[in-house]
Amino acid sequence: MGTTPQVGTPSGMRELNQRAVLARLRSAGPATRPQVAKDTGLSKPTVGQALLDLERRHLVREVGRTSAGPGRSAVVYEENPAAGFVLGVDIGRERIRLAVADLSGATVSRVDERNRCRSARSLVQLVRDLAEQTVATAGISFGDVVSKVVGSPGVPDPETGALHHAPNLPGWGRKGLLEELATALGPGLVVENDANLAAVGELTAGAARGAQVFVCITVGTGIGMGIVVNGQLFRGAHGAAGEVGYLPYGRPEGEEPPERGMLETEVSGHSVVRKAHAFGLDAKSAKEVFELARRGDQSAQRAVAEEAKQLAFVVGAVAAVIDPELVVLGGGIGSNTDLLAEPLEQALRATTPLRPKIVAGELGETAVLSGAIAVGLGSAREVVFDRTLALKTS
Amino acid sequence: MGTTPQVGTPSGMRELNQRAVLARLRSAGPATRPQVAKDTGLSKPTVGQALLDLERRHLVREVGRTSAGPGRSAVVYEENPAAGFVLGVDIGRERIRLAVADLSGATVSRVDERNRCRSARSLVQLVRDLAEQTVATAGISFGDVVSKVVGSPGVPDPETGALHHAPNLPGWGRKGLLEELATALGPGLVVENDANLAAVGELTAGAARGAQVFVCITVGTGIGMGIVVNGQLFRGAHGAAGEVGYLPYGRPEGEEPPERGMLETEVSGHSVVRKAHAFGLDAKSAKEVFELARRGDQSAQRAVAEEAKQLAFVVGAVAAVIDPELVVLGGGIGSNTDLLAEPLEQALRATTPLRPKIVAGELGETAVLSGAIAVGLGSAREVVFDRTLALKTS
Repeated sequence: MGTTPQVGTPSGMRELNQRAVLARLRSAGPATRPQVAKDTGLSKPTVGQALLDLERRHLVREVGRTSAGPGRSAVVYEENPAAGFVLGVDIGRERIRLAVADLSGATVSRVDERNRCRSARSLVQLVRDLAEQTVATAGISFGDVVSKVVGSPGVPDPETGALHHAPNLPGWGRKGLLEELATALGPGLVVENDANLAAVGELTAGAARGAQVFVCITVGTGIGMGIVVNGQLFRGAHGAAGEVGYLPYGRPEGEEPPERGMLETEVSGHSVVRKAHAFGLDAKSAKEVFELARRGDQSAQRAVAEEAKQLAFVVGAVAAVIDPELVVLGGGIGSNTDLLAEPLEQALRATTPLRPKIVAGELGETAVLSGAIAVGLGSAREVVFDRTLALKTS
Repeated sequence: MGTTPQVGTPSGMRELNQRAVLARLRSAGPATRPQVAKDTGLSKPTVGQALLDLERRHLVREVGRTSAGPGRSAVVYEENPAAGFVLGVDIGRERIRLAVADLSGATVSRVDERNRCRSARSLVQLVRDLAEQTVATAGISFGDVVSKVVGSPGVPDPETGALHHAPNLPGWGRKGLLEELATALGPGLVVENDANLAAVGELTAGAARGAQVFVCITVGTGIGMGIVVNGQLFRGAHGAAGEVGYLPYGRPEGEEPPERGMLETEVSGHSVVRKAHAFGLDAKSAKEVFELARRGDQSAQRAVAEEAKQLAFVVGAVAAVIDPELVVLGGGIGSNTDLLAEPLEQALRATTPLRPKIVAGELGETAVLSGAIAVGLGSAREVVFDRTLALKTS
């Protein structure tokens, strides 16, 4: 204990030491100064100085004291999960879901509301109001949110600021929409395709953990797909990779493409209800059709089998183009894998030798939100570290 | 000139210096010792020693002397293109094409033969015979060939040694075929999907130079597609990415998938002739149909339009899944873009808003061979450098 802290250490070196100490606390949990020194290979005085700096910056906090073992007890430190927060938003046609998570990824507050908006302006305003509500419920201020990730249908276009190919959200395709969202939510905003975020969610905490090349197909009001290759989202040349709603399907009706994709019209949203009606069933929602099918209603089962066949077309097409090892199914319709999987795989067997493994998503309705938080956390720690640098000087 | 060569330089350092000198000669062409010293930042004696070592290893050769300027003339060195050779083989159902290229990529010899083989054994033997012929024509021995790349339909399976999904080559799917090829052609063999090699060819020296995310669709006896993302082939989870012959198309006929893909049966090989027959035309080959269409024959033109519509289905499906910036069309059928492009783009406009740029391949029948040579060159220089290390010691 005779060594004094190296107050003369150059600031770049001190920063590196702090990062090393933080990384240790993050990956292996709370620890004492000697434990951190042992695990990082840094000297105890260096670790002591780093912990002091990190405490001043509110990035690390004392969490208790060791009681076991000989000698006097030692302080146990942990990464301060409240050093910064992440806001995730899932904008769907039917519902808007929001969550605030701390730096450890733990959800602090959650809001889930119906989306009744009929214009882009009202939807942006609603997102803003709900975001304030979610942040307030978390007991923090907007300034504590260092990263905001919005998942939305469509393909964000950085040049025009529009979200292309989102026919289910009225007015969502207009120029400058991304800026309106940025104005409403403030700095640190990322807008990402919702199906892409669902894929990230299933990769981080769901059915695709450890998968190298997989897709996550979300079928609900619309249909979307996220593609992950070696842990990274694959977006294609213009961000439209995975827009499988535009798969050619059936016969084109005119000279121009339909507003909604040919496949999307057939396979998502009200198409399940439409199919049930065609089989003489008076169902009001896809959910009802699936429930009736589960209870043995034959018309509902035929509608489900029809839906499964069309999903087999999607999976077969995706397999022929990118050969994924795994297909995760999610969304209000896609998540009914207990009913869909068997007829889907049967239809696939009859059409192609390329048959990836098909599983249900594990995150259900929160897949997009979960992916949004995961993406936000990816940058949040760096943001927090950088913005507290000014507090460092001792 | 008073400094003596650094004979005491450690061998690792000498190797690095030689690599630096070689890289300079390769990238900016023949140069004198002082020029190389100036461009690499190495001292003249170091460059002198490296050139001496490289000459001993036959990796560099004198190509002449400077005559201009004052003082005595200086020796001009270049990378020795004959330090090693690459063999490329394109195994198609109709023809087998081979080429030998030197380290500069220049073709030294070329062979093009009909493939009349009806068994895998006879095909492997033919490949071996033609390879010997090609090597002999180049005036070199098999030992001078440091890298061999074979392009074939199908998906090489390193576990079973079979080439899956190559229904057009009889017996090609049997276990151990890759070993038979390796035995026939000797060490340094790489077997790659032919459509993938065509994509590499078009990327290296054809229509896709500079493209970031593109596909090359080859339509001939079969249909295949190579996907390139940021300069690298994308192969999917099991090497079957781009096997668009298996795109679901039309109605499945039974419980099992057809041996050839549903789409492949409709769009490639004799399907153009079949379409022409359906329109009352007595044509014997796809080539004849395209020629008749060019001369204004309406039945031939209708057959071509039908073919273009089906290709639009492929392009539309690929666009919805991976959103490429560019689609390169090649192969015996696909290369007729003068006839196919317009109806293809018209059909695409009626089905989807995702429409990548479509262009003809620039390499024609040599695309696969060109890609094979490019892949071979990628490793050949390293092989040559390593295997001549023993000759280095001065």
